[in-house]
Amino acid sequence: MEVRIKILYTSICHTDLSAWKGENDAQQVYPRILGHEAVGIVESVGEGVFDMKEGDQVVPIFNGECEECIYCKSEKTNLCEKFRVNPFKSVMINDGKTRFSTRDGKPIYHFLNTSTFSEFTVLDSACVVKIDSKAPLKKMTLLSCGVSTGVGAAWNTANVKSGSVVAIFGLGSVGLAVAEGARSRGASRIIGVDINPSKFIKGQAMGVTDFINPKDLDKPVHEEIRKMTGGGVDYSFECAGNLDVLREAFLSTHDGWGLTVILGIHPTPKMMPFHPMELFDGRRIVGSVFGDFKGKTQLPHFADECDRGVVNLDGFITHELPFSKINEAFNLLMEGESLRCLLQL
Amino acid sequence: MEVRIKILYTSICHTDLSAWKGENDAQQVYPRILGHEAVGIVESVGEGVFDMKEGDQVVPIFNGECEECIYCKSEKTNLCEKFRVNPFKSVMINDGKTRFSTRDGKPIYHFLNTSTFSEFTVLDSACVVKIDSKAPLKKMTLLSCGVSTGVGAAWNTANVKSGSVVAIFGLGSVGLAVAEGARSRGASRIIGVDINPSKFIKGQAMGVTDFINPKDLDKPVHEEIRKMTGGGVDYSFECAGNLDVLREAFLSTHDGWGLTVILGIHPTPKMMPFHPMELFDGRRIVGSVFGDFKGKTQLPHFADECDRGVVNLDGFITHELPFSKINEAFNLLMEGESLRCLLQL
Repeated sequence: MEVRIKILYTSICHTDLSAWKGENDAQQVYPRILGHEAVGIVESVGEGVFDMKEGDQVVPIFNGECEECIYCKSEKTNLCEKFRVNPFKSVMINDGKTRFSTRDGKPIYHFLNTSTFSEFTVLDSACVVKIDSKAPLKKMTLLSCGVSTGVGAAWNTANVKSGSVVAIFGLGSVGLAVAEGARSRGASRIIGVDINPSKFIKGQAMGVTDFINPKDLDKPVHEEIRKMTGGGVDYSFECAGNLDVLREAFLSTHDGWGLTVILGIHPTPKMMPFHPMELFDGRRIVGSVFGDFKGKTQLPHFADECDRGVVNLDGFITHELPFSKINEAFNLLMEGESLRCLLQL
Repeated sequence: MEVRIKILYTSICHTDLSAWKGENDAQQVYPRILGHEAVGIVESVGEGVFDMKEGDQVVPIFNGECEECIYCKSEKTNLCEKFRVNPFKSVMINDGKTRFSTRDGKPIYHFLNTSTFSEFTVLDSACVVKIDSKAPLKKMTLLSCGVSTGVGAAWNTANVKSGSVVAIFGLGSVGLAVAEGARSRGASRIIGVDINPSKFIKGQAMGVTDFINPKDLDKPVHEEIRKMTGGGVDYSFECAGNLDVLREAFLSTHDGWGLTVILGIHPTPKMMPFHPMELFDGRRIVGSVFGDFKGKTQLPHFADECDRGVVNLDGFITHELPFSKINEAFNLLMEGESLRCLLQL
């Protein structure tokens, strides 16, 4: 049930950055191969794999789908029992061993079910999605994580309605993908919030209609948003991984029906900054993993939608470099210069 | 737009108890007339009231419905802009004055839009629901608050599905009404959690199938519930107003799709005991006010359902006393002896 893939393109997401810096104890397993956004070609398949064959175009997914467990069979979740995203996992599930090793036979560990910063990688077939795209293959790299996470949060988690009003906190790739998802659903107003004004220019192409730089305000962001919108937005998306931002996102929604979707990774042990009674105002808050997409069964249709232009992926790839310049790509991301820098292997 | 009502029966809810004890600063406005669960007869109506007339049977509601504001016109909320539950409100909205006074003309303040511990009371018509019930009128007192809150949390907020598994933390009237609501929806298993074993006997009549007394366990309640249910319940309801209980209720639900509904009033300023990342396990949490019933438009149908026996109100009235013995009724509630003690005026 495993698949070996030749990676063609890979890109870097903040989760790679965080693991590279060793910010999270769970990720401090070395040596390991990072990387989880990519597109590749099947090199060979193991016993029991019937839905892919050598030469197929595929996208690895960190949040797998076995299609057999109670979770995969439920319409309510995309968290597979065995292959859901798990930062603690560093070996293959079949034998508890790695498929990478040093020249002297010592294990090199896996990362997020994927490990795409490599010419070849081995994944459980539950974590590989076959994509028959007519679009340039390299664009499909975006579907591995960031764009699917953002668009799916708007489509699946929030189910953004036409004419609704949206606020997005943090305009990296994920936040801008939320904007693209909300725009494609017909949101009438998309308010982008970021402290980096250069994100505002990028955001306009993805449907962002209004920009707020919290540094330019003399009051909390939620007060400004409530004033702008006559009471608050229908949906807010927290893509910053910051608890103060999360509270602003929550308070920016309209009482009675506002929904806040958490996408950001919150590294501190601090608890949620809400009082239980605040939920009595009718504001809701939910988490979203991989945009609530079931990868194996739903990503192919999402790829079709991208082909058809329902979602426009053009703006997300801001840089392209050979894989050997990966450190340069890390710097571009850290400095907020790039959305996605595509690395060609 | 005001209605004067002759109260026939009233009962006591924990919110009255809390206000009587002065536990909440907002409720410390004196002198005032407490009470918000009742049934009565319209004595007279003011200008502009066309949906009620003298002699009508009515139920006061603390969470009113003007039927005109953006909230009332939205299907997503039962929080009226003007007449939603508001512990800070102590006067009428029209003129900022009270309709009660002492013999020497000093104001006596209102409570929760209702003030039912009184022979006569005056309410905004948005807070009065006409009920054409064939059932004994006194039972309709229960619809004013506790039973509607609990049944509605199961029906409207959680939308409990047939065959699903439910846990209820705190088996007072509200918790038991949740059980009755879940039973009527066809829940296959209803787990009641309370530290008072006498609640277990009462609970059986309302559909509770399993009982847990946390004092009898040597592990956290959520571990026991996950073991009993093979992973957790579909819905949990927190009716205790305690943060530790809230966390147990949250962790008792199944990952991927579990929903926790908060009904308890949390008096401490402490924030929610969850880490944002815990929402990535697919557990959700929402608040519920008055069972998400829109009082004026939806309570009459709920009363019909009670008449038809869809919901059985018989077990909730455990005691009856004349209104003059109200202090005895307070004691019964405080000691956990009564569910509802009906006071006849």
